[in-house]
Amino acid sequence: MTEAVVIIGSGLAGYNVARELRKADANVPIVVVSRDHAGFYSKPMLSNALAGKKTAATLVMKPAEKMAEDIKGRVIANSAVTGIDTQARTVTLASGEVLAYRDLVLALGADPIRLPLQGDAADTVLSVNDLDDFAKFAEALDTAAGGQPVKRVAILGAGLIGCEFANDLLHRGIEPTVLDLADRALARLLPTEASARLQDKLQAGGTTFRFGVGVRSVDKADVGLKLTLSDGSTMQADLVLSAIGLKPRTHLATEAGVLTGRGVMVNRELATNVPHVYAVGDCAEVQGHLLPYVLPLMAQARALAATLAGKPTPVTYPAMPVVVKTPAWPTVVCPPPAHAAGTWTVKADEESIEARFTAADNPEQLLGFALQGKAVTQRQAMAALVPAVLA
Amino acid sequence: MTEAVVIIGSGLAGYNVARELRKADANVPIVVVSRDHAGFYSKPMLSNALAGKKTAATLVMKPAEKMAEDIKGRVIANSAVTGIDTQARTVTLASGEVLAYRDLVLALGADPIRLPLQGDAADTVLSVNDLDDFAKFAEALDTAAGGQPVKRVAILGAGLIGCEFANDLLHRGIEPTVLDLADRALARLLPTEASARLQDKLQAGGTTFRFGVGVRSVDKADVGLKLTLSDGSTMQADLVLSAIGLKPRTHLATEAGVLTGRGVMVNRELATNVPHVYAVGDCAEVQGHLLPYVLPLMAQARALAATLAGKPTPVTYPAMPVVVKTPAWPTVVCPPPAHAAGTWTVKADEESIEARFTAADNPEQLLGFALQGKAVTQRQAMAALVPAVLA
Repeated sequence: MTEAVVIIGSGLAGYNVARELRKADANVPIVVVSRDHAGFYSKPMLSNALAGKKTAATLVMKPAEKMAEDIKGRVIANSAVTGIDTQARTVTLASGEVLAYRDLVLALGADPIRLPLQGDAADTVLSVNDLDDFAKFAEALDTAAGGQPVKRVAILGAGLIGCEFANDLLHRGIEPTVLDLADRALARLLPTEASARLQDKLQAGGTTFRFGVGVRSVDKADVGLKLTLSDGSTMQADLVLSAIGLKPRTHLATEAGVLTGRGVMVNRELATNVPHVYAVGDCAEVQGHLLPYVLPLMAQARALAATLAGKPTPVTYPAMPVVVKTPAWPTVVCPPPAHAAGTWTVKADEESIEARFTAADNPEQLLGFALQGKAVTQRQAMAALVPAVLA
Repeated sequence: MTEAVVIIGSGLAGYNVARELRKADANVPIVVVSRDHAGFYSKPMLSNALAGKKTAATLVMKPAEKMAEDIKGRVIANSAVTGIDTQARTVTLASGEVLAYRDLVLALGADPIRLPLQGDAADTVLSVNDLDDFAKFAEALDTAAGGQPVKRVAILGAGLIGCEFANDLLHRGIEPTVLDLADRALARLLPTEASARLQDKLQAGGTTFRFGVGVRSVDKADVGLKLTLSDGSTMQADLVLSAIGLKPRTHLATEAGVLTGRGVMVNRELATNVPHVYAVGDCAEVQGHLLPYVLPLMAQARALAATLAGKPTPVTYPAMPVVVKTPAWPTVVCPPPAHAAGTWTVKADEESIEARFTAADNPEQLLGFALQGKAVTQRQAMAALVPAVLA
């Protein structure tokens, strides 16, 4: 029986497992399989890259070959996995190669949710979910307005990613329009006052928000694109960016008989229902928690590496503040647990907003918070007051 | 034999252990012993409290009684521990009470380092290391200039805490003078350019820095205090705040036969050399790592709670960025491992500084970073590129 750990996926989750596992076990063979170039980069940096004048090339920290050296393993780039046989413990690649595994790690990531749009230019709508997407996006910004740099960008979705891209585009002198069916930005994460302030700041920078409307169709116009909205109105744009949200990639898992819910369902040791198959990162639903952020992913990777090195280790989640990458109005939110009963108390002045979410039955119990402006410096100090999500 | 877990210390470390342990074990008796009021608060918020108009009273999230309810245990406030008998497994309090323990957790914290100052007002020099200190400090700010609000504050030390207090005092309209023997601010954490920019921003706000000088003596003056510096010059101040650094509290441990180095020495399971004695927080030196910050402390508390609940769990440290609470120039630093060989590469523009510390022998290996200004929003995205400190 082979001793190899095979990791499907070369994002932060996959590579962090590989890297920590190598530190914990000098000898286990490690194979990373990737659909793409398998360069090591940080996906969350994509929505902040224009401000830093980063390109797809400079975002890559290490190419695949360097990563192979680092993890003293094999990195198979540009290879789709076509099937998993959990009985034989093998993974089959599109090339026909079959990899045997001792343990299999699904670090499959998540796909952007796509709206069912109509119109003859619906297929031109971009999402930026990986480095290749980003390269396309950057190129489009330079050329998509009839060979000229883009001036008008419509962003579908005023959530985390939508607001981040809106802010980033401001650095390029673009004044984006952000559309959302909700009535405010980051509606699922922030209290109303905090959403309003973030909107104000992004608007002051040149962003337009349109709430309560969706997009029905995207068509070619004489110059650029014409969007028809749910209220019947139309607007022009050179480029449409979709940032509606993410959907864990579960297809490979389901086909292999691995249980999936919203994501690949795993326990605290990141183990699925199938022996020797684990899941981490944006595809993983850990005891009901689907948290597609950096800190949970890193916590998972460390725990799983220890487990794979022979020391079964449940993942722990402290209160993990999420940094919203909107430098126009710095925002950090430590969301209360889903369905927690409680209320927001908001303290606001010119320079900052401090919002505390406290338990309905115990008003001294801090369950989450949102900090903005100068108050964001308190995020670590305040996170220590919030109970762990998974202790 | 008793089954109680006794925790000495009611800071973030002690209470986080108690809280997570109670979640993991509904039945184990928990006793928290504190030298002070034992209210639950976040010490790192003290250096940021003036800006938020917080008082000693409003900084307390929960009084001792509420904490006792929360942890379903006993909280003994205002009680010094006079001795530990590791054979009998007992802790003796100043009151004479003897507590038997199954496991003992030392969450002793750290003391401010005090300079050996001369002068008839040397004993008026304040440090702010706990809530009582903060209350004194706040009162002094209101009254120490001959019954009037203070205008002139001298801060000894241009490190993390010194710069944070300098920034915070600006919110009170005070223009502090920060003195340090080093030649720049946060010299041990930041590359030169980043120190310089932070200094510029704090200076623009009204701070004066004096580098390369120490303080020799503090004497009473006609109005306020007179400081005599190492270069022979003098300066006036109404109040002197010492922020030189912290020294782990190890005395109780040493007396009890527990090995100490710079701190109370523990392994990855936070266990000392003495059976059933553990250490966490600012007093703990974990396999040589002495990291008196919030994130390490929280990681320790979760791991130790699991261990005490019967599931031995080594602590893991991801790359842990430290937030410098200087809203005048937002700064986050993810320090490279001590003694790591490498170089800083700094990219700077008006709005941000991004500094990367890469390995000398592997320039694509990111070992640490410092981010300032608008670039701080990248901290989580970038931390995922840095290897774990303790995987």
